[in-house]
Amino acid sequence: MKAEYINPFITASAEMIEQVTGFKTIKGKIYIKDVPYRSESTLVLIGITGGFHGSVVMSFSKAICCKLASAMMGCPLIKVLDEIGKSAIGELCNMILGYTATIFSRENIVVDITPPTILTGDNIELSIPNTVVVCIPLLFEDDTQIEINVSFAEDIS
Amino acid sequence: MKAEYINPFITASAEMIEQVTGFKTIKGKIYIKDVPYRSESTLVLIGITGGFHGSVVMSFSKAICCKLASAMMGCPLIKVLDEIGKSAIGELCNMILGYTATIFSRENIVVDITPPTILTGDNIELSIPNTVVVCIPLLFEDDTQIEINVSFAEDIS
Repeated sequence: MKAEYINPFITASAEMIEQVTGFKTIKGKIYIKDVPYRSESTLVLIGITGGFHGSVVMSFSKAICCKLASAMMGCPLIKVLDEIGKSAIGELCNMILGYTATIFSRENIVVDITPPTILTGDNIELSIPNTVVVCIPLLFEDDTQIEINVSFAEDIS
Repeated sequence: MKAEYINPFITASAEMIEQVTGFKTIKGKIYIKDVPYRSESTLVLIGITGGFHGSVVMSFSKAICCKLASAMMGCPLIKVLDEIGKSAIGELCNMILGYTATIFSRENIVVDITPPTILTGDNIELSIPNTVVVCIPLLFEDDTQIEINVSFAEDIS
C-alpha cells in the first residue's frame, strides 16, 4: 500500500484532533481490514471522489465522542451525545477530511469530499465491496482509541 | 425544492429496480425528513460530489433485501442476507446512482459518486448536519417499501 495515500489521513487526523480538542494521539498499527467488519456504536461517514474513490468511516465509542465533543464545546464532560454533540463530532471529522484533501492537493491528488453522515446504533457491521479497507487506529494518552477506516476503490498497492 | 434535483433519483430508482429485479414500484409521498431519523436495519450509503454535495441513504428491511437480492441472483428466496446478498444490494444501489448521475449529466449537472457502503445494525439513527434530507419512498406491489433519503448540502429550494 502506497504511503502517499495513507499518510495524509494520519497527519490530518492527529493534527486536527490536537488543534481542536487539545488531545494528543499517536497512530497504532495500521492494517488491512477484512470485510464485513463490526464497528463501535458511533460512526461518521464521509465519501471521497476525484483522484481516487472511496470513503472514510471514523468509528468512536460513546465515551470518546462525549470526551471530544465536550472539549470542542468547552463545557464540562457531557454524559450523553445529543444532537449538538453529534454535530460537533461531525464537524471535527469534516475538518479532518478537509485538511486531508488539502494535503493530497499538495501532492497533486485532487479529491472532493461529501458532507459527514453521523450514525449511531447497535451491532453495526459494514461491508464495502470491491474496495480495500485500511484501518488507522489513533490512540489517546488514556489508552482509548478511535479508528479511521479508509476504503479505496482504486488499487493503491 | 426543485424537481430537477429530485426527479433523477425517482426515475433511476424505479427503472433500475424493475430492470434488474423485475419488481415494479411506484413513488410514495415525498417529504423533507427531520433529523435525526431512525432507519431500517439495512442501509446502503453512497456519497455525491460535483454539481452538488450530499449523500444517498437507501433504507431496506431485511425481508426486502432478501427479496431483491434473490431476484438479482436468480435463486429461490434467501432467508438470510449473507455477504453475496449484501454485495448484490450494494450493486443495485450503485447502478441506481450511476443511472441517476447519467440523467443529471443530461441536464448539465455533473456529479460523481462514491462506492456503496452497506451497513447493518439495530436501533440505527442518522444525523446529517447542515443538509436538507428529502425522503423518496418507493412502494412495491405487496405494499412493502424502501426509502431513498437524499441529503443536499446546497440549497435546492
